[in-house]
Amino acid sequence: MTISRTRPLTVDATRLLDGFERLRAVGATEAGGVSRPAFSSADLRARELVAGFMRRAGLSVTVDEAANLIGTAPARDPRLPALVLGSHLDTVPDGGAYDGACGVIAAVEVARTLRDHDRLLDRPLRVVAFSNEEGIPGAPAMFGSRAVAGRLDPAELDLALPSGARLAELLDAAGGDSAHVERARWTPGSVDSYFELHIEQGPVLDAGGPRIGVVEGISGRLTVEVTVRGRADHGGTTPMHARRDALVAAAQVVLAVRRLAGCHGPVRVATTGDCAVAPGAWNVVPGEATLTVDLRDLSAAAVERGLRRLIGDCAEIARTTGTRIEVTPLQHVPPTPCDPAQQRVIEDVADGLGLPRVTLPSGAGHDAQWIAGLAPTGMIFIPSRGGVSHSPREWTEPGDLVNGANTLLGCALVKGANP
Amino acid sequence: MTISRTRPLTVDATRLLDGFERLRAVGATEAGGVSRPAFSSADLRARELVAGFMRRAGLSVTVDEAANLIGTAPARDPRLPALVLGSHLDTVPDGGAYDGACGVIAAVEVARTLRDHDRLLDRPLRVVAFSNEEGIPGAPAMFGSRAVAGRLDPAELDLALPSGARLAELLDAAGGDSAHVERARWTPGSVDSYFELHIEQGPVLDAGGPRIGVVEGISGRLTVEVTVRGRADHGGTTPMHARRDALVAAAQVVLAVRRLAGCHGPVRVATTGDCAVAPGAWNVVPGEATLTVDLRDLSAAAVERGLRRLIGDCAEIARTTGTRIEVTPLQHVPPTPCDPAQQRVIEDVADGLGLPRVTLPSGAGHDAQWIAGLAPTGMIFIPSRGGVSHSPREWTEPGDLVNGANTLLGCALVKGANP
Repeated sequence: MTISRTRPLTVDATRLLDGFERLRAVGATEAGGVSRPAFSSADLRARELVAGFMRRAGLSVTVDEAANLIGTAPARDPRLPALVLGSHLDTVPDGGAYDGACGVIAAVEVARTLRDHDRLLDRPLRVVAFSNEEGIPGAPAMFGSRAVAGRLDPAELDLALPSGARLAELLDAAGGDSAHVERARWTPGSVDSYFELHIEQGPVLDAGGPRIGVVEGISGRLTVEVTVRGRADHGGTTPMHARRDALVAAAQVVLAVRRLAGCHGPVRVATTGDCAVAPGAWNVVPGEATLTVDLRDLSAAAVERGLRRLIGDCAEIARTTGTRIEVTPLQHVPPTPCDPAQQRVIEDVADGLGLPRVTLPSGAGHDAQWIAGLAPTGMIFIPSRGGVSHSPREWTEPGDLVNGANTLLGCALVKGANP
Repeated sequence: MTISRTRPLTVDATRLLDGFERLRAVGATEAGGVSRPAFSSADLRARELVAGFMRRAGLSVTVDEAANLIGTAPARDPRLPALVLGSHLDTVPDGGAYDGACGVIAAVEVARTLRDHDRLLDRPLRVVAFSNEEGIPGAPAMFGSRAVAGRLDPAELDLALPSGARLAELLDAAGGDSAHVERARWTPGSVDSYFELHIEQGPVLDAGGPRIGVVEGISGRLTVEVTVRGRADHGGTTPMHARRDALVAAAQVVLAVRRLAGCHGPVRVATTGDCAVAPGAWNVVPGEATLTVDLRDLSAAAVERGLRRLIGDCAEIARTTGTRIEVTPLQHVPPTPCDPAQQRVIEDVADGLGLPRVTLPSGAGHDAQWIAGLAPTGMIFIPSRGGVSHSPREWTEPGDLVNGANTLLGCALVKGANP
């Protein structure tokens, strides 16, 4: 019998899926999705649950100053730079069960499988659930991964959120330490490499043969707030020609954003995600409207062209509607290439497991894009049905979750060794 | 000296303006306006303040089952049908100090002036501050005046408001009696006539000579809720062609509503007052958007044409955007003509005071439109600077407030007599 020697080590599929199901129950919605915004009570319960999973996998659990949940495995040489596997546990409001969660649950299962098979790695294996990846109203996304990368603006902590709370208070309630958040930063050289398993959230893998996506890079992203200021007037008595209706102008901005993407637009995708109207009463001409806009492309120049066109469009709309329109670029994340050597590791592991693979870009942002500045970074995609995510209809086949975890395990075995 | 005999009785201008200033301080905003939505704590404090004014004017004060604040003066013959003067104390969020308030304060001053001069009227003078004229999110407008007119739908009381409270709870907290709200109805024949003083909220009087507007009728109004249902998807990964973006469709509806009014539109004014987006996150394609629409015209047929065109436009927008759009007409208030005899009383009084006057329609709805079904009704307008209302910039000159109160007093003297 030589099979047991040549057959790759694999995760316990039943345990993996059971852990996933237990996590998806936290914040589960009637529509079949999950609502677990960062620092919500559901998010805090999910972190507790996963901390328990980590302990059962033999990891020593800590929460850093940025509220990142970190589990560390013993190593042959604990002084070696760490191998890090991670993703996030928070979701968008009314989102799905897979985005983020599958990467954390798979990483914990990798650690448990290694322990069950007494496979002590040379270097410390660190499993990380980064805090607030999705962002919450009033506070930018990817808080935890930006914190470890030293890319946090300390002013963020003082942001007054729409709820009235400061971000610092939410952070501290989640086990962080807002007064010393800079200590969460990972020292240069402390990380040897990073892998993140994630659902694709796009249609490429779902369309056909490949089961594993090897990510070549992550799209750049620019978030923009557009504030339209008109004049609040009585909706019954103010003649149409005398109005400065902020919502009528904002509607034109929404359609201008739509035209930034597609056949003739400069960027790959452009989205207006929210529109808030003030005062927002039945019988009052809107005096102010605030739009949140998101532009993405694999080319930083394309995003820049999109912003310039949006500014021009808004100036024209302001002129014709008698409003003032302020276009404020907020978070600009440049495109991030993935490390070619990490890509080759993923390819070799997938080939060894007999899993068809394809190389593709990521349309969504991920914690990995911040870690890429610290250490060689690789991302593994598994299929999303219909390419759908951030929705209760998010779905990945159980077999694909298992394939993804096994690929992550194979990568950990390769990069956990000190050559 | 015959002057004292022929000079008409007039109000105490200083006291009138002082009462007005004290009322405007309740719910005053930094922007110089007033925020006193119905049943808010500011509204309740305003009602207490005005109840005190009523008592000092010699009125006996009651709050009826619909939370209308009512002050009644003694009369030569208390059994005669009443003369009613009224308006409302609530405002839109971030509104102005004049809309509603000036009519109530002036009516109280009329009562006090009559008492100070021992002018006991033949019939009971009733001063009314009708509850919830402006409407609040989730509950329709003109609650109090519809209640006395017997035009309340009892189901309204069970409406769950966005705050989570039921309208009935707010009503009871304001001194109403939700279990017996039908008892607030005024019996036929109990009212002899009604006058309401109000700011014009339009540009006619502000433009020139006339100081007093004699209202010939009140515009009809239709409120419509438009719900757009698309599909929530990830804003970074979902290709533009695969989206069913509810906000992109809603933006087209906002522009279609705008086209319902003006040069080629069927109605006089059309307003989309609010737009609520779900889930409303930066990186999620909007799955649902809800618009509140308000159509007004002096012709009921024109409003009906506007609704039909809106339904047609929405069907076309739904088709081209891959969304479903539901158009739900909510409150339909037909146009209300004002009583010609009441108009003549206002004209004669204004002429006697030497105040230039003009006859004009009302673009806004008023409590008067419900009382018109019970008794001969007249409305007196005074100028609004710039025609602006429902805004912190609402402004009426003190002299015009005094002119309005004196006109109301003159009408009370004419109609308070039993001929």
